[in-house]
Amino acid sequence: MDNLHQCIEALNNLDFNGLYGEDFLLTWKKSSDEIAAVFAAADALRALREMGKPTKIFQSGLGVSLFRDNSTRTRFSFASACNLLGLTVQDLDEGKSQLAHGETVRETANMISFMADVIGIRDDMFIGRGNSYMREVSSAVKQGQLDGVLEQCPTLVNLQCDLDHPTQSLADILHLIHEYGSLQNLRGKKIAMTWAYSPSYGKPLSVPQGIIALATRLGMEVVLAHPKGYEVMPEIEALAATQAKESGGSFHKTYSLEEAFANAHIVYPKSWAPFAAMQQRTALFDEGNNLALEALERELLQTNALHKDWECSEELMKLTSEGRALYMHCLPADISNVSCNEGEVAASVFERNRVSLYKEASNKPYIIAAMILLAKVSKPQTLLQQWAESDAFRWHK
Amino acid sequence: MDNLHQCIEALNNLDFNGLYGEDFLLTWKKSSDEIAAVFAAADALRALREMGKPTKIFQSGLGVSLFRDNSTRTRFSFASACNLLGLTVQDLDEGKSQLAHGETVRETANMISFMADVIGIRDDMFIGRGNSYMREVSSAVKQGQLDGVLEQCPTLVNLQCDLDHPTQSLADILHLIHEYGSLQNLRGKKIAMTWAYSPSYGKPLSVPQGIIALATRLGMEVVLAHPKGYEVMPEIEALAATQAKESGGSFHKTYSLEEAFANAHIVYPKSWAPFAAMQQRTALFDEGNNLALEALERELLQTNALHKDWECSEELMKLTSEGRALYMHCLPADISNVSCNEGEVAASVFERNRVSLYKEASNKPYIIAAMILLAKVSKPQTLLQQWAESDAFRWHK
Amino acid sequence: MDNLHQCIEALNNLDFNGLYGEDFLLTWKKSSDEIAAVFAAADALRALREMGKPTKIFQSGLGVSLFRDNSTRTRFSFASACNLLGLTVQDLDEGKSQLAHGETVRETANMISFMADVIGIRDDMFIGRGNSYMREVSSAVKQGQLDGVLEQCPTLVNLQCDLDHPTQSLADILHLIHEYGSLQNLRGKKIAMTWAYSPSYGKPLSVPQGIIALATRLGMEVVLAHPKGYEVMPEIEALAATQAKESGGSFHKTYSLEEAFANAHIVYPKSWAPFAAMQQRTALFDEGNNLALEALERELLQTNALHKDWECSEELMKLTSEGRALYMHCLPADISNVSCNEGEVAASVFERNRVSLYKEASNKPYIIAAMILLAKVSKPQTLLQQWAESDAFRWHK
Repeated sequence: MDNLHQCIEALNNLDFNGLYGEDFLLTWKKSSDEIAAVFAAADALRALREMGKPTKIFQSGLGVSLFRDNSTRTRFSFASACNLLGLTVQDLDEGKSQLAHGETVRETANMISFMADVIGIRDDMFIGRGNSYMREVSSAVKQGQLDGVLEQCPTLVNLQCDLDHPTQSLADILHLIHEYGSLQNLRGKKIAMTWAYSPSYGKPLSVPQGIIALATRLGMEVVLAHPKGYEVMPEIEALAATQAKESGGSFHKTYSLEEAFANAHIVYPKSWAPFAAMQQRTALFDEGNNLALEALERELLQTNALHKDWECSEELMKLTSEGRALYMHCLPADISNVSCNEGEVAASVFERNRVSLYKEASNKPYIIAAMILLAKVSKPQTLLQQWAESDAFRWHK
Repeated sequence: MDNLHQCIEALNNLDFNGLYGEDFLLTWKKSSDEIAAVFAAADALRALREMGKPTKIFQSGLGVSLFRDNSTRTRFSFASACNLLGLTVQDLDEGKSQLAHGETVRETANMISFMADVIGIRDDMFIGRGNSYMREVSSAVKQGQLDGVLEQCPTLVNLQCDLDHPTQSLADILHLIHEYGSLQNLRGKKIAMTWAYSPSYGKPLSVPQGIIALATRLGMEVVLAHPKGYEVMPEIEALAATQAKESGGSFHKTYSLEEAFANAHIVYPKSWAPFAAMQQRTALFDEGNNLALEALERELLQTNALHKDWECSEELMKLTSEGRALYMHCLPADISNVSCNEGEVAASVFERNRVSLYKEASNKPYIIAAMILLAKVSKPQTLLQQWAESDAFRWHK
Repeated sequence: MDNLHQCIEALNNLDFNGLYGEDFLLTWKKSSDEIAAVFAAADALRALREMGKPTKIFQSGLGVSLFRDNSTRTRFSFASACNLLGLTVQDLDEGKSQLAHGETVRETANMISFMADVIGIRDDMFIGRGNSYMREVSSAVKQGQLDGVLEQCPTLVNLQCDLDHPTQSLADILHLIHEYGSLQNLRGKKIAMTWAYSPSYGKPLSVPQGIIALATRLGMEVVLAHPKGYEVMPEIEALAATQAKESGGSFHKTYSLEEAFANAHIVYPKSWAPFAAMQQRTALFDEGNNLALEALERELLQTNALHKDWECSEELMKLTSEGRALYMHCLPADISNVSCNEGEVAASVFERNRVSLYKEASNKPYIIAAMILLAKVSKPQTLLQQWAESDAFRWHK
């Protein structure tokens, strides 16, 4: 229970009131205290879970999930977080393009929210779309409550958009906090966020963008590496540079995987699609030009194949700090000779870090639950303390 | 809390015992007191929700949803109602025709009901089928309980059939009660239930039928308008005529949209398929004659296109009472220049009524929950009062 | 409440500690006391349900369902069992082959289990696969808990594999206990587990295998009958023979339906695919040889059609004990002239046994719930007694 007390104490020293009643869409719209509060609340919820204490904020209520891209682990993380807090998940199944137009978004957002306390959205396929869709839904339900249509206003949680993947990047950094002992200890650590080769096509940019946008705020030495042409969105790069200056960390770009790995404490090699190609893809999708979309896909796969040497190999790992950097990934990884012939990471590197990777992933439900807790409960410390002292148990063993 | 006391007081003065332990399939099989009790219970549940009180009838139990047609808002309304009362939704996914035969309906109805307290069914595609299917399921589970197969008998809620759409029509009328102050105040109000042009095909008859069958019982002046050939089922027209006489209201038919709108207090313009065509469709479906079904669809769309002037336009709205009748719709509407080129309603008319339309829709989860409450709880007033006085809250804010 | 006390008393006299904390994969890996404890716990839970008592072990938690074959009744049985005990179901939808490889199974098993207390798996399509897949998942989540990835270790429940269908066979035998008054009374009763003709293709072997593997332990006279070539797995036959000797029952094989039915107290005629064909099918599936798979299907259907006389007819039923053996089936049955032209059973035989068949099926949710209860609660008798004495009710009537 020591850990729980530390978490509550940490919350007592943070100003996170700005999270109350608000959506969680982008990490860079939240203050450093608010980010730290999410970490503390996530660890507090995990500590209570370990103690077998129920942590239901809600006696009833719906958590609506709206996935506009396939997902297993994010779906289960959202369902787990809702269950932890007492909400029941109701999925909204829809085609990718069905809710595209303004009037319809506003209407559907209200129609699914009569009993909704939370809406989790994943919409990461098209540049310039996912985040703006989320803001459209958010504004619709806020207006719905003002108009007396909704008895309560559901909080939005970004489960991955075109810009950011906050539940992933926060789960990743929480893993680093656990590995290094504290948020403070991350200062000065070198993290290499790098592209890696994958035989599959068009993975979103939100993971690398989320990592560089978050790690640069923490005083870390952040290096972004990729082959020429595989740029991420320029505004996120600019944001990373500015934040690094403010935090006393650094942000560098390189086209050399070796340079990125050199003396890195943490490496995060992961495939993504070039920003320019993603923009082209959105435009072709808007035109409904399926032939050109297929041609673009073939072209991108061919270009990818020129960079099969961008693999997180044992040789590269030797370049890292003490030859044993922490290997991170959002999973599932394309593992060479396991899930594909040639992929993002050598099997031995992955296997050596497997338990660590699973722990990294296991933070996500708690991060989502922490976002909901801080958006819905004005004095979470009091509630956390009550739960800890209660003699209720989640499970009659 | 005044509103809640009024609702409980209203229930005290109504004889609604006939709802206890019974299905809710057709509004016209329920007494006027029973209909009024559904309105009072729905408002009471909403008042408790506004007060933040939990309203769980059930500690556990399943609400089975069986949708034989696509649905987003009815699915969410049913899920919301179940959640409000403590039930967990379990969906039965099935093809349209899989449960068509007698032995199978009886068997499946029992197999899905071992822990089911409620079954919500939407089956509106084929004339002469949906309601009879519901009665078949109802009789199967009643027998299942008598036989000792089921520990409890699930209550059926009609979420739309070929004859009626009671959760919609009751949500619609509850909206009018809120707009006009009381059920009594609806007497003498003119409501125009009219056909409207839509570019889509074969919408069910249950909305217009549900509205004329319910509004004529309330002393309203009901006008049904549509192009020649777009008749609804003759037995529902006959029912409306009889009920209007009994209630002191009126029921008229016209082929003129102008005549219907003239001095109307409320207009409900909405597309549907002609009854004769729906009968033909059922016959062709039974034959498995897909070519003829496609030919029928093309023919119906062509006939529809002859009536593009059946749009709820600003000009037509000027004919209504004081030029500002309340515009109603079950949503989603086909809005001209928004969701289609030419549709059921002009964008400006829709937009002016948008908040009102969303409030109309927001009644549906409470109507469904009220149906379940009155079917499952013998003294709902006592329970409503207990919930109001309890210091439990749904949500630890 | 007498029945409940008898169940608790029965549990007091049984040694079922081996079930605590363990998966339920195969009946023959469980001791006779453990099998008897499942029956007693299932009846206890049903008695509490009849008394209207809530039986939530869990205040929150997920029951993950993973169906690698279509299912309605097993899905609803699992959902019902979870609901009865306080768990929320989260479905994992996946293609049949997606989780085929080692690394992926281990990873996915952990990723879906962060809040999972139970995982129910149905994987019965390929010989040599289903059960080994379950053991792979089980070992992955056990390791996950040891590694600190999971806060709790989910219990696996086999909802049908290539070897056994324990929730079915236990529900079936519990039905016989209810019919004959006690487990002891089943000794010496003759049960004919027989093949029957069905126009459909490739049904799993796990039902006949599950029945002969369980009934032979109970001192029953077990006969397995099928046309030549329709053998089940040889190791299960050997197991049945050994167990029959130990229990004082018997196990015989015959190619004559008449011989099997002669003086049988219970008959269980049901279609399945030949073991040799199932092996061939798995090999062709591994090769991705779809043409050969289709050819195999055609060939099997043709061979099946040579045995249309393997129908549970009124004539055959006359051969059974007193001419009125109990007819059993796992449902849905292929009923001649009802669900198909020629099938497993004559309509009149099915109809006469219909209520009994539904009761047989109604045991399944309680069997699953009992498996979970005994795996999760160390002193279930205490909890059952507390529930019985509590003045809580599941439903505010």
